[in-house]
Amino acid sequence: MKLETKIEYFTTPLYLESGRILEPYQIAYETYGELNHDASNVILVCHALSGSHHAAGLYEGDRKAGWWDELIGDGKAIDTQKYCVISTNVIGSCFGSTGPMSSNYPSDKPYRLKFPVLTIKDMIKAQKQLLSNLGIYHVKAIVGGSMGGMQALQFAVDYPNFAEQIISLAATYATQPWTIAFNKVAMEAIRRDPRFDNGQYEKDAFIEEGLDGLAIGRIAGHISYLSPESMNDKFGRNYVNNDGLFELFGRYEVERYMEYNTSNFSKLFDPMSYLYIVKAINTFNLSRGYDSLYDAIIRIKAKMTLISFSSDYLFFPKEMEHIHYMMQRNEQNSKYFEIDSNYGHDAFLVELDKFDYIIKQALEESN
Amino acid sequence: MKLETKIEYFTTPLYLESGRILEPYQIAYETYGELNHDASNVILVCHALSGSHHAAGLYEGDRKAGWWDELIGDGKAIDTQKYCVISTNVIGSCFGSTGPMSSNYPSDKPYRLKFPVLTIKDMIKAQKQLLSNLGIYHVKAIVGGSMGGMQALQFAVDYPNFAEQIISLAATYATQPWTIAFNKVAMEAIRRDPRFDNGQYEKDAFIEEGLDGLAIGRIAGHISYLSPESMNDKFGRNYVNNDGLFELFGRYEVERYMEYNTSNFSKLFDPMSYLYIVKAINTFNLSRGYDSLYDAIIRIKAKMTLISFSSDYLFFPKEMEHIHYMMQRNEQNSKYFEIDSNYGHDAFLVELDKFDYIIKQALEESN
Repeated sequence: MKLETKIEYFTTPLYLESGRILEPYQIAYETYGELNHDASNVILVCHALSGSHHAAGLYEGDRKAGWWDELIGDGKAIDTQKYCVISTNVIGSCFGSTGPMSSNYPSDKPYRLKFPVLTIKDMIKAQKQLLSNLGIYHVKAIVGGSMGGMQALQFAVDYPNFAEQIISLAATYATQPWTIAFNKVAMEAIRRDPRFDNGQYEKDAFIEEGLDGLAIGRIAGHISYLSPESMNDKFGRNYVNNDGLFELFGRYEVERYMEYNTSNFSKLFDPMSYLYIVKAINTFNLSRGYDSLYDAIIRIKAKMTLISFSSDYLFFPKEMEHIHYMMQRNEQNSKYFEIDSNYGHDAFLVELDKFDYIIKQALEESN
Repeated sequence: MKLETKIEYFTTPLYLESGRILEPYQIAYETYGELNHDASNVILVCHALSGSHHAAGLYEGDRKAGWWDELIGDGKAIDTQKYCVISTNVIGSCFGSTGPMSSNYPSDKPYRLKFPVLTIKDMIKAQKQLLSNLGIYHVKAIVGGSMGGMQALQFAVDYPNFAEQIISLAATYATQPWTIAFNKVAMEAIRRDPRFDNGQYEKDAFIEEGLDGLAIGRIAGHISYLSPESMNDKFGRNYVNNDGLFELFGRYEVERYMEYNTSNFSKLFDPMSYLYIVKAINTFNLSRGYDSLYDAIIRIKAKMTLISFSSDYLFFPKEMEHIHYMMQRNEQNSKYFEIDSNYGHDAFLVELDKFDYIIKQALEESN
């Protein structure tokens, strides 16, 4: 599978939910598999908060493959011998699509905090524009987990004729205050970090030494991605032995995990992008723009596959089940699976063997 | 009820679990009710992380009564017409007992990070010393929630003949990694705050403008004290209307709650004390110093009352139940109650009418 990051440039305006306009803008994306003659084999994959368009395959020199590499590839559940998979970087992100540190045309200065507030609705509008530019007006399926699952659901509601199948994992119909509170840790930690400097930091300022505020916020994030059970399995009360110290003076392994992962992350991710994307997650509410959640859900025409994880402490299974129940009451086509897992929210990235067959089956049914 | 903060000074050394010695030290405490002629009516009350010895009554000019005022008083579940209640401030705290910002005798400079690591075991050892000084060698009951519940349990194990009754709420037999991870947010946020200055800040430096790091850490704390259910009930997805703005630009009520409570808290609590107390919570493990948890638990002679809350996301009910099961297997005297509540961990401070009768009953049985 030949890997390549492509960039699509748009000079037409993107009208945002906030009333503001993004113009010009660009979207980074990857594709896996070949487009067939009538462009009827497209699967759109949507990424989560910290993800990117690099969903599958391994770049030369990289140690890690794309975030859903186990799922996407030749002969895998999302089979690139059959399908043309398109994975885009959301607008607002820092991995190639237009975001807050992009130049605020016609100036060559970054937007910074002048970048418009973005929503999940805006993200998918931009994605749909990309697909139009590529000559794709209908897709076989839209698949995503967490914020990617939100995008899939929003597509189902906003563009009911666009996708045959919607496969949404570990998401919700509207972000609940519990999750907003976790995000609040990151927002405050970034905002109050002196090096963030109210967004006036230099581009790439944190490559050598990540922003503490982002690392701290990310600890709260990791708590919500794991679960009490997965932490017990993974760390228990073990402490770091190579500190060579008695328990009272050492670090616990769970502490080391948090330090290591978050410090690395804060060198890789732009804190301003983080603020904007987290805000988009907070404001996610399928019913906004419609009279009620019912009025939003009843619009859906796609076949819906909803997958949640029993130990997800960020988006609880009952939130996904709620969508399923509404669709069932409306006699819409919906299937719901609660996967038994100890991995918490992260299960959608980790325990693929527990649900990849569901995705495979859903896609095969639509052939 | 006449209120008074008393201070007891100790010039004898306190031998700590770490091997270090605290000398001299002092303990702040309050008492409610009268000691009877044979000093047989004492109830010791233990506070949680952010609490103090001010558990009941209202000081002149104060708007808020002590943190368990609904529970402790004349005619209340812990009836001060019958009992002499003693509530102490833990060592390490910043409300009158010796802590990291106390003078490192014989110098008049604060200990700061030279203060010894403290454990729950150390805290109760100091409390027991205080009671000895007051001529009290046996108590009717020891009662506490969260870190206070840990102290009660540690008393039961370390000093099996000291208390007739142990009443522990919303605690655990050993702090689990999930909780250590929440505490990690606070530890990192404080440690990385430039104004914390590696502990070299001036005493009372944060009275006017609280330390951001503590406020940020406290947001994570508040998440763990509440529950998804209580946040849904309390805040939903409401946003702050008096910001006069469309959802996309405003703050959610849950965000305002977090900002308000944590900013206030960071003016009132010393960040170094917070670090030391959080560390004591992290290292809490009833079995440390014994061959196993069984060997610790089997020592208990007191009548045990264990109370947990169904929606506690910090110390899960099954952790308390585990102690109960062990005691039952050993044919020790134990009662366990899981209170149905939406309030999360905070329930032990909020929903007193759901469990005060249990405490009342336990105390009456022992008469």
